[in-house]
Amino acid sequence: MSEYLLPLELMVEQLERLPGVGRKTATKYAFTLLSMTTEELENFTTAILDGKKKILNCRKCFNLCEGELCTVCGDAARSGEQICVVEDVRTLMAMERTRNYKGLYHVLGGVLSPIDGVGPEKLHIAELLSRVKEEETREVIIATNPTVEGETTAMYLTKLLHPLGVRVTRLAYGVPVGADLEYADEITLARALDGRREL
Amino acid sequence: MSEYLLPLELMVEQLERLPGVGRKTATKYAFTLLSMTTEELENFTTAILDGKKKILNCRKCFNLCEGELCTVCGDAARSGEQICVVEDVRTLMAMERTRNYKGLYHVLGGVLSPIDGVGPEKLHIAELLSRVKEEETREVIIATNPTVEGETTAMYLTKLLHPLGVRVTRLAYGVPVGADLEYADEITLARALDGRREL
Repeated sequence: MSEYLLPLELMVEQLERLPGVGRKTATKYAFTLLSMTTEELENFTTAILDGKKKILNCRKCFNLCEGELCTVCGDAARSGEQICVVEDVRTLMAMERTRNYKGLYHVLGGVLSPIDGVGPEKLHIAELLSRVKEEETREVIIATNPTVEGETTAMYLTKLLHPLGVRVTRLAYGVPVGADLEYADEITLARALDGRREL
Repeated sequence: MSEYLLPLELMVEQLERLPGVGRKTATKYAFTLLSMTTEELENFTTAILDGKKKILNCRKCFNLCEGELCTVCGDAARSGEQICVVEDVRTLMAMERTRNYKGLYHVLGGVLSPIDGVGPEKLHIAELLSRVKEEETREVIIATNPTVEGETTAMYLTKLLHPLGVRVTRLAYGVPVGADLEYADEITLARALDGRREL
């Protein structure tokens, strides 16, 4: 149904790419954008394009960063003895909000999911293994989401990590099963960190 | 709280300008945008900027259009005897979806609201009066929203339009089709009762 003018239709189509945004919401967004001045709108699009250009991945842990290393990897006060493995940067940010963890991270960039064609080679698993071998790592804390794929990935990593002689732990089930770590509250996340168990 | 990298913070700030979007949703949107390829992202921002550039206002009724006149004003099959006055283009679109109205429109661009500093001079009221004087208008249907401001605007327009010798009507108030009377608010029910029709 193309009841809209073509340029509006194209705006709506693009805005519908945002997660959870359907045609109605996209239309509401389009009208808000159209009501902005050209200058305001340019600030809007420039911020987005600049973000894409300037935000890179830490070459060590794949966290977001602006230079070579992220603020966590670049922080001498953080212990290199622990690496917390997360699915994505949003989980990393949630962990940081607990202010309870002083080690490093490793962002996998997803979880194993054969159905979606995500095998180990699509995740930053090889890089994790190299880090564990080369760095002073003593413990790898696996903080993948408590979902089927997250669990499978945790098991897979455990098998690869154990032979390297590091302690492998998993966040405790303080986080409700089936939920998304990104939205867990600080206290629950902190409890889960405290109660981590040997795998 | 600036826990984010500056470029991400700027993206989130801009995305928070979308209606009903808070920090969490804006962050979710930002990550989705960052996960797109540069080309996809350019399509996204180009569609928005192009929309702003190409979508103009009909010089007659202020509906959205690409040229001088909108598709409604340019349609010879539409009757010029009726003008339906709406607050904004989205209401116009809702009216068009009924496929029940064959007259023209006039988009006010808002409603009178002294608190927000919106007086008659900020709305397309003068243009409406000129149209009624110059065109073959016989009836003006006022379809502002059933809010305090919408009512005030309707009253104000009625006073200005009556001396011009046109019929001035207002959309009927009543219970929405499919609604449960049990949950209808008192004012709506009272209005529906007042406006009852012979069967």
